[in-house]
Amino acid sequence: MNAVQLGLLAGALTSCAVIPQVLKAYRSKQVRDLSIWQPVLLVLGMGLWLAYGIMIDDLPLIAANLFSIACNVLLIVMKFLYRGAQGAC
Amino acid sequence: MNAVQLGLLAGALTSCAVIPQVLKAYRSKQVRDLSIWQPVLLVLGMGLWLAYGIMIDDLPLIAANLFSIACNVLLIVMKFLYRGAQGAC
Repeated sequence: MNAVQLGLLAGALTSCAVIPQVLKAYRSKQVRDLSIWQPVLLVLGMGLWLAYGIMIDDLPLIAANLFSIACNVLLIVMKFLYRGAQGAC
Repeated sequence: MNAVQLGLLAGALTSCAVIPQVLKAYRSKQVRDLSIWQPVLLVLGMGLWLAYGIMIDDLPLIAANLFSIACNVLLIVMKFLYRGAQGAC
């Protein structure tokens, strides 16, 4: 496995990592225990990773971060959308 | 700002992103709404990013991923530790 293949696999794993959380939040409509700051900081940080990937012309970094940003924005939207369910048990 | 500085800033942000979630889980002892698969996949993926960073000799990738792996392992431990509180409201 060369470096680019390893980077693409790494990017695929870290990009997909947020999917189970997005699905769990969507199914349960419960987001009480989630910190809003994790997806917010991730979107900001991944925006910079994306810029860094573009600057050093690195495909794994660019592809992985584009996808992750979209997923984390979805999680932020759900955190606000399901706010009303916070107090309910 | 050059590419390495941008990468280091990006790494700092995405690495710190998990800290609010770790603190929230530690304080509330509530981890019901957290998917265990997010930190598990992140640890696996970041392990590969770390290997990729070492292969392409990229300091921001190496530093960021070492720290994030430690934080996500902590979150996995808490998910198991606070399991008993899952059913309680």
